[in-house]
Amino acid sequence: MSDERVRIVEVGPRDGLQNEPGRVPATIKIELIERLADCGLPCVEATSFVSPKWVPQLADAEEVFRGIRQREGVRYPVLVPNEAGYRRARECGAEEIAIFAAASEAFSRKNINAGIAESLERFRPVMEQARADGVAVRGYVSTVLGCPYQGEVPVAEVVRVAAALHAMGCYEISLGDTIGAGTPRQARQMLEAVAAEVPMQALAAHFHDTRGQALANLYACLEAGVRVVDASVGGLGGCPYAPGASGNVATEDVVYMLEGCGLDSGVDLSALIETARWISGRLDREVGSRVGRAGSFDASPRAC
Amino acid sequence: MSDERVRIVEVGPRDGLQNEPGRVPATIKIELIERLADCGLPCVEATSFVSPKWVPQLADAEEVFRGIRQREGVRYPVLVPNEAGYRRARECGAEEIAIFAAASEAFSRKNINAGIAESLERFRPVMEQARADGVAVRGYVSTVLGCPYQGEVPVAEVVRVAAALHAMGCYEISLGDTIGAGTPRQARQMLEAVAAEVPMQALAAHFHDTRGQALANLYACLEAGVRVVDASVGGLGGCPYAPGASGNVATEDVVYMLEGCGLDSGVDLSALIETARWISGRLDREVGSRVGRAGSFDASPRAC
Repeated sequence: MSDERVRIVEVGPRDGLQNEPGRVPATIKIELIERLADCGLPCVEATSFVSPKWVPQLADAEEVFRGIRQREGVRYPVLVPNEAGYRRARECGAEEIAIFAAASEAFSRKNINAGIAESLERFRPVMEQARADGVAVRGYVSTVLGCPYQGEVPVAEVVRVAAALHAMGCYEISLGDTIGAGTPRQARQMLEAVAAEVPMQALAAHFHDTRGQALANLYACLEAGVRVVDASVGGLGGCPYAPGASGNVATEDVVYMLEGCGLDSGVDLSALIETARWISGRLDREVGSRVGRAGSFDASPRAC
Repeated sequence: MSDERVRIVEVGPRDGLQNEPGRVPATIKIELIERLADCGLPCVEATSFVSPKWVPQLADAEEVFRGIRQREGVRYPVLVPNEAGYRRARECGAEEIAIFAAASEAFSRKNINAGIAESLERFRPVMEQARADGVAVRGYVSTVLGCPYQGEVPVAEVVRVAAALHAMGCYEISLGDTIGAGTPRQARQMLEAVAAEVPMQALAAHFHDTRGQALANLYACLEAGVRVVDASVGGLGGCPYAPGASGNVATEDVVYMLEGCGLDSGVDLSALIETARWISGRLDREVGSRVGRAGSFDASPRAC
């Protein structure tokens, strides 16, 4: 596990900001997305075309997506919940989308008022249209290591949903521990079970740090061979002071770990730390990451 | 790596509180130590007999140590810096002590105004007296993955100092990433290099979470075979909001990870979380751990 490339999918502007309390101006979101791309991140999930009724924080999806000065070679997927969302995304010029399903039947019903099978069916016309349009589709599986409603989630269910999304045409499946319940051994076993059905190269690891396990889980998954990691600048997505807070793992903590493990993400860590501090300041909160607060470590010899 | 026992050495009352700003009453320290032992922790480092001039936070070492209602089967080591400290510790009835040395020459000079070799020499009479008294001695090596003054610390130096402490009679050597600079691959490589000279059973992993890497580093070290882990309830030892904050890895985050990995620490996680919340309240600060804030995860089936 070294001298290899890891691709980070930056989800802060979407998965992060959709959970931030308070409205963030579109201009700040646009600047955030542009700064992240400038840091060397190859893929920045820009926003979500869900109904503003569900997620008012991202009601400005059109304005944000149209406002981005897109950087050559960087991808800007957007989340879509259905055909209406797909059309809105395409009208803004989105060339890549993400769809989602839960591994927990109870979570699926609570979250989108439909069971897993029905939720997958709903995405079929979106997938057909995307194929016809040449639009790449990423798939998310949520609650892969635990559900706030049903408790344990059988690994077989995770495998089934991931394989279904892959079979439907998703080029990559992101396995999400939505509530940060998992630990490294569970994460690795879950990943390996999925990788028996879906090629490891088509899998991504997506951890929330609710119980502090995210980096350890990621490390276990990197050891098992995953090379795509979702992360959120500044750990956006959950207030670090609220009980049960569940921000995504912070991109700068991930990049720091990858660098130390000899894995190359192509991301400029200094620029990323600066971006984490900038967005945290704009949101009027402490930086939600350790590396963002402490800074990197300079291992070079110095005068004493 | 499962169905095995991991021994946690709780260092909160010493390594944690010695870095807390503000004076903590001895009665609170005593209650903390007693509560930790009641949680099932087999070893609680109680205090430090360094000069109050150096560490005013622990100037009440005598009062604290004498005040503890010791629990049968639990060990209460205390840190001692020299023969004077040893005598003070013994006068209070301490039956186990800990000594320390740095792996970084620059850190050793800045911290105790003596080079590594000289610092080891200073402990020889303490070790001789301890042997004569039948007092067990634990050894700490600090700055094993980086130094704030000299930057990189060669692994060979860590091996040399750890082996020296072991040869002097320390039954266990705790390898400390004092400034939280390391990442999992480095941690594992360092541990394995030391384990080539000192038996793995005589080694402990001691991480600070300055850059969020502590649990990932611990996991990597557990994979490499270490079965003793130092941790601090509530992540005591560094203000989580200050830049460069460097609390110890939180005991409850560690226990949560161990349980999920099928490793038994004998610690009651619920009682530990309660203790973390209690001491954080007494120190008038947020709980410095994720599990302390979010609580554990209940994987049992529930009605939906």
